[in-house]
Amino acid sequence: MKSFHPPRRTLMGPGPSDVNPRILEALSRPTIGHLDPAFIAMMDDMKDLLQYALQTRNAITMPVSAPGSAGMETCFVNLVEPGDKVVVCQNGVFGGRMKENVERCGAEAVMVQDTWGAAVDANKLEDTLKAHPDAKIVAFVHAETSTGVCSDVKTLVEIARRHDCLTIVDAVTSLGGIPLHVDDWRIDAIYSGTQKCLSCTPGLSPVSFSEAAVEKIRNRKHPVQSWFMDLNLVMGYWGSGGKRAYHHTAPINALYGLHEALLILKEEGLEQAWARHEHHYRALKAGIEAMGLSYVVEESVRLPQLNAIRIPAGVDDATVRRQLLEQYQLEIGAGLGEMAGKVWRIGLMGHACNARNVLTCLGALDDVLSRLGAPIDSGKAVAAASKVLFPQS
Amino acid sequence: MKSFHPPRRTLMGPGPSDVNPRILEALSRPTIGHLDPAFIAMMDDMKDLLQYALQTRNAITMPVSAPGSAGMETCFVNLVEPGDKVVVCQNGVFGGRMKENVERCGAEAVMVQDTWGAAVDANKLEDTLKAHPDAKIVAFVHAETSTGVCSDVKTLVEIARRHDCLTIVDAVTSLGGIPLHVDDWRIDAIYSGTQKCLSCTPGLSPVSFSEAAVEKIRNRKHPVQSWFMDLNLVMGYWGSGGKRAYHHTAPINALYGLHEALLILKEEGLEQAWARHEHHYRALKAGIEAMGLSYVVEESVRLPQLNAIRIPAGVDDATVRRQLLEQYQLEIGAGLGEMAGKVWRIGLMGHACNARNVLTCLGALDDVLSRLGAPIDSGKAVAAASKVLFPQS
Repeated sequence: MKSFHPPRRTLMGPGPSDVNPRILEALSRPTIGHLDPAFIAMMDDMKDLLQYALQTRNAITMPVSAPGSAGMETCFVNLVEPGDKVVVCQNGVFGGRMKENVERCGAEAVMVQDTWGAAVDANKLEDTLKAHPDAKIVAFVHAETSTGVCSDVKTLVEIARRHDCLTIVDAVTSLGGIPLHVDDWRIDAIYSGTQKCLSCTPGLSPVSFSEAAVEKIRNRKHPVQSWFMDLNLVMGYWGSGGKRAYHHTAPINALYGLHEALLILKEEGLEQAWARHEHHYRALKAGIEAMGLSYVVEESVRLPQLNAIRIPAGVDDATVRRQLLEQYQLEIGAGLGEMAGKVWRIGLMGHACNARNVLTCLGALDDVLSRLGAPIDSGKAVAAASKVLFPQS
Repeated sequence: MKSFHPPRRTLMGPGPSDVNPRILEALSRPTIGHLDPAFIAMMDDMKDLLQYALQTRNAITMPVSAPGSAGMETCFVNLVEPGDKVVVCQNGVFGGRMKENVERCGAEAVMVQDTWGAAVDANKLEDTLKAHPDAKIVAFVHAETSTGVCSDVKTLVEIARRHDCLTIVDAVTSLGGIPLHVDDWRIDAIYSGTQKCLSCTPGLSPVSFSEAAVEKIRNRKHPVQSWFMDLNLVMGYWGSGGKRAYHHTAPINALYGLHEALLILKEEGLEQAWARHEHHYRALKAGIEAMGLSYVVEESVRLPQLNAIRIPAGVDDATVRRQLLEQYQLEIGAGLGEMAGKVWRIGLMGHACNARNVLTCLGALDDVLSRLGAPIDSGKAVAAASKVLFPQS
């Protein structure tokens, strides 16, 4: 058996996305202790950087030492108590995972179902809350990774607040790619991932909790069912000021990577990063449409960073993705859940969101589909995208 | 704000230990997708390497995508059901954490208490199981990181089996440092960490489950309370053969690091690694005793990789550790729980277990303690250790 040397791919699926080489280098810096004063200083920096990325002053803002689904679970196990009623808006795979979390907390999930590919319907949420005045929490996904749709967080939180509910928001795919304002929108609990628009390696989950959420956690009647995710304990290590109490051993080098990723985002500026995602999405879209392919999601609520494209009739999903990977070293995503076999998911996330990737993807897709005899308008996509990318030339 | 460039420490605490540079380099290899065929092939290799390290053929042998305390929780939430009676042997901090896990599963923990620093008493376990014939699980720690004591896993498992109990064993600090035979000793569930004797970065937790354990998990009456740690779901991604179903996004680059760490262990050979830990421990011990310092744990049950040393009277714990860190870039560990302020924990783990570190540590400790006026026999430790390290010269 030998050392594993991965092939060099272009990652344009639903994440992980292409990682900035600065981040890869950061991962390989010397390991130090999780209670080393130098590491503690880095943790303080990390909190500042995360607060900037999330646009919040929440004192409890930190990375959970595990992937995004553990960040989701951290929000649910801390805020939900047995017997609570939680309204979950589902319009894709990840709303379903929220339901699982609610039920495993011994609570009741009241589902607000929307068509996959549509945004969460604010009126349905309002009606549901009127019908369930005892609901305590509302949970939904900002950017549904399974369909590429964006929901209106600001409005949904306003409705939840009018009904005295705390909110849990999934920002796994939105953070760094589209506007997200935790404080202005008054979100109570939010979790994200590192491997989407932050272009970091997977394995950590930034989370943030409002004062109201922290108060609820501190005053729980039942202990949090998870020891590893119990914020009453974790806050002793990541909480602000004073002594850092050992809880678990932090994933030191992975945190070096996240620190570097957040620094890169700050150097670019949030608004600039959002604009870059929008710009390259427009170029990709021009190419996709020039080819005669279509989007699952209506334009007004479409995510720039996650493009769900309908697979043309008669084309075999897996064959196309395999050829893209083998011939072009290009990874795009398969459909998930009820979208499996029906769509491809093309990510334009963080460091992967650039002109070279847009043109590589369109060129490769055009080539593979044409050679498989798919009903597309071949040879036009790259030119259409270039016009958007480089309007002056 | 700037990139974080950590100081270069020598890590001789309770973990993280010094990381082999090969592993740091592996972390920085290009990220690929968690369902990429090349990554799947690496996962198969990883399982073989973990099976070797743990000396098991268990099909369910894999790294949990989070630190050792999540590996612990994975074992408990999957094997323990509400209302179960679980016997927990406690002789340090981590037995206490097991109790927390049992209770958060809605089960009853029956504690077998031993003095901190002593091994788990097999007779007490036997008596407890006789008094609680309805107990279903026995849990204990192989190598207590808080005290440096080794318990007799083989005997404890035999007793548990005679009473029809499954066993959960904490091998966080033992794996790679001292003999551990999962199959021969008939352990049902075991978890470990990466940042101890594997000398990898922290953040992952190797686990392994016997067929009996897997059967119990598949036939649970209550769903596992954690979605993230539910092995019924995780096994779809890490389980053997066939299609890998998406559960959560694996921490790709961290897994590159663990693969490399396990490969290094295999290249050296398990027996050779165990012997290396024993050899360098003997040298450190010669130096510690030459200085007039003493161990917490009796010699016959002492861990070579974790040396808990009594702090001499009148010496301030924190001052010594700070001076070692600032002047010698050397990290040793503080006492934990009831040992806080009373002991130092000197790790000789994995890559950090070498002659240079033994001499560095003894020289630095001798210097700092002498200058603080501590009652030690100064100037003899390095020579005493050298005689053990290099008997021929």
